[in-house]
Amino acid sequence: MTAPLKIGIAGLGTVGVGVFRALDENADGLSGRAGRALAVTAVSARDRGKDRGLSLDGVRWTGDALELAVDDDVDVVVELIGGADGVAKDLVEAAIGAGKHVVTANKALIAHHGAALARMAEDAGVTLAYEASVAGGIPIVKSMREGLAGNRIDRVYGILNGTCNYILTEMAGSGREFEDVLAEAQAEGYAETDPSFDVDGVDTAHKLAILASLAFGSEVDFDAVYTEGIRHVSPMDIEFAAELGYGIKLLGIASRTDGRIEQRVHPCMVPADAPINHVNGVFNAVVAEGDLVDTAIHEGRGAGAGPTASAVVADLIDIAQGRTVPTFGIPAASLARLETIPMETHHGAYFVRFMVVDQPGVFAGIAASLQAHDVSMESVLQRGRDPGVPVPVVMTVHETEEAAMLRTLEEIAALDAVVEPPRMIRIEML
Amino acid sequence: MTAPLKIGIAGLGTVGVGVFRALDENADGLSGRAGRALAVTAVSARDRGKDRGLSLDGVRWTGDALELAVDDDVDVVVELIGGADGVAKDLVEAAIGAGKHVVTANKALIAHHGAALARMAEDAGVTLAYEASVAGGIPIVKSMREGLAGNRIDRVYGILNGTCNYILTEMAGSGREFEDVLAEAQAEGYAETDPSFDVDGVDTAHKLAILASLAFGSEVDFDAVYTEGIRHVSPMDIEFAAELGYGIKLLGIASRTDGRIEQRVHPCMVPADAPINHVNGVFNAVVAEGDLVDTAIHEGRGAGAGPTASAVVADLIDIAQGRTVPTFGIPAASLARLETIPMETHHGAYFVRFMVVDQPGVFAGIAASLQAHDVSMESVLQRGRDPGVPVPVVMTVHETEEAAMLRTLEEIAALDAVVEPPRMIRIEML
Repeated sequence: MTAPLKIGIAGLGTVGVGVFRALDENADGLSGRAGRALAVTAVSARDRGKDRGLSLDGVRWTGDALELAVDDDVDVVVELIGGADGVAKDLVEAAIGAGKHVVTANKALIAHHGAALARMAEDAGVTLAYEASVAGGIPIVKSMREGLAGNRIDRVYGILNGTCNYILTEMAGSGREFEDVLAEAQAEGYAETDPSFDVDGVDTAHKLAILASLAFGSEVDFDAVYTEGIRHVSPMDIEFAAELGYGIKLLGIASRTDGRIEQRVHPCMVPADAPINHVNGVFNAVVAEGDLVDTAIHEGRGAGAGPTASAVVADLIDIAQGRTVPTFGIPAASLARLETIPMETHHGAYFVRFMVVDQPGVFAGIAASLQAHDVSMESVLQRGRDPGVPVPVVMTVHETEEAAMLRTLEEIAALDAVVEPPRMIRIEML
Repeated sequence: MTAPLKIGIAGLGTVGVGVFRALDENADGLSGRAGRALAVTAVSARDRGKDRGLSLDGVRWTGDALELAVDDDVDVVVELIGGADGVAKDLVEAAIGAGKHVVTANKALIAHHGAALARMAEDAGVTLAYEASVAGGIPIVKSMREGLAGNRIDRVYGILNGTCNYILTEMAGSGREFEDVLAEAQAEGYAETDPSFDVDGVDTAHKLAILASLAFGSEVDFDAVYTEGIRHVSPMDIEFAAELGYGIKLLGIASRTDGRIEQRVHPCMVPADAPINHVNGVFNAVVAEGDLVDTAIHEGRGAGAGPTASAVVADLIDIAQGRTVPTFGIPAASLARLETIPMETHHGAYFVRFMVVDQPGVFAGIAASLQAHDVSMESVLQRGRDPGVPVPVVMTVHETEEAAMLRTLEEIAALDAVVEPPRMIRIEML
């Protein structure tokens, strides 16, 4: 058997501890799969004294993560610090520069700097692995990069953030408000104290940008992702959606049309019987559409110590076995820079809701605006009328250009009878 | 760029043509992923003259598949002939013996001879790849062998035969009889003229045996798979199942308990809201349960030229890139021989149906048999009574040992009032 693979873990939070434990507790089974021992030789974390329930005997400890990059007793640096820049980025660059392999769970880092880091890794002849950065334990990076490598993939989409999916699932089940469910999720540890990365869609956008690069053989282009979160999703809209035969999910969707790509993250109304609508709670799911495979769906837990450790350890086994793949499936120099289709020119169907006070001519005003912008109504729903009290008017419109839809809503919002900003949710017939 | 990978394809049926086309039509994209050209240099098929809509210019043709194994102009033999023995096995053994890599879609071959072939391939230092043999285009072999390699997997199960799932889905949707739907499926090309491998569960058993080996690091043991097909599933049972909150699916289930394994294929009643119950039509799905990842679900098309080609081409790209993995994830010599838990000692819940003529004492007789074997009833359902005409009595029973259940059914079947062999469907709380 070959010499052990020497591993330095940077960051001993929940995930770091999970990785350490996984390597420790199943050491025999893993060395069978890896063809050699996977040995943690060094760790870095801020607080040495903290009780993590681990025995760090025989493991070099350092408070300075960057030391792992120059430690002769480390073959692979496992970066679990997080953040697109700062120490995480410095460490990954230093490790690659020092000829060490890197395994990371850091979606922000890969989303912002993936293409540059891939070039660095390729030049240095080392592996940059990031299975854990997208959809937790689901081996979707490997599937996109290797398992589906025979396909031309023109669309990939999914539920990529467990916190949002948990909140939307709870809202749909209980009829409660977003803020309520968020507070509960925070109390139960499903949501961060500062939830904005999750609920504003940024985390989903990070992961989507990575999937898009793998799908299209293009440079990761996070800045091109249109991003909208779930704060404005209301129980009322969830209820109307159900009535119309839809569920509401926060999706990331990347597609390629005539050599240009569209990357967007926003709440979507999806048909109630679509497979993606059955993915509930903290589960994630990714759907890849390829010319050969048709539709391949991967589903599992998108976060947590165990699933993340599963992904990190799989990357380590690949490295231990000497299995190498270009970071995004093709040589970094071949990654295309694909033009973005601006969101204004996106074509889709829409659900819109106006709160109106019932007065003569309000419908005529709405209808006139729709007609003026060539927006064609598919269905309309109004229930209850109570003179002076705002009531919801809900409609779905046929496929139209987003810019026309937005101009229409702006006009309608300015009508006297319309008393709240209109709500708009895109309909995806997945 | 390295020299092309030279490929010999044995078998030019639907799948062979699909592979040939995939390699031809997307040659540029694939060489980007593979780091070198994937070039078909030779093919074998029975009938040279047949019009397959392919240009075989510059490709060596032979009527004798075994010639591919000794062709100096072939690096990899793609075996698409099929069958556990005969030419397919001879070819694969000869190719490995001649130091050539092998890619195969042949589940029967791998299920029957996987362990021996893995040892041969390992001794010869070549790759034996078989992604296409399980669940078509779903990259489940790679996921089990690499993507989830960090996990201890104690259960894997799935819908592994699209024909059966199509038939059961149609039956549930239309209320039609098995024979009816089968005939239609045959007419539409979803079922073979001789459907027994599919509908009797053999094909599912082949795939399950392969998944079990990957999950447990054990030698493939097809003979140990308990196998029961879907011929006896009736519209009446599907209807009762729905009423009780279940769907009926043909599942393959492999699990490990205390170092022994259970492999079984049979119709299952699964909760209506279980993810696996939403997998419909020709789709396949595989659920792996690991200690780290929890539950990972893969879903997609389990058969057809495109999906199979997707899997074959992925294997070819791995070989072109020099990525090697032991055939079943660990060295062949380390594969365990795990004892089988006999089906008689299986513990589970059951749905049973008796057709009885309504006469005094029939319930007492049934109840006495249940009690005599310690089988505890959970629910009972009888609808309609028509003196002299048999009516169904349906019950579900709490978890019990299969042997006790079978003895109970035997006794009940012998009651005068019971006019047809009892039906039994196992309930799986997935």
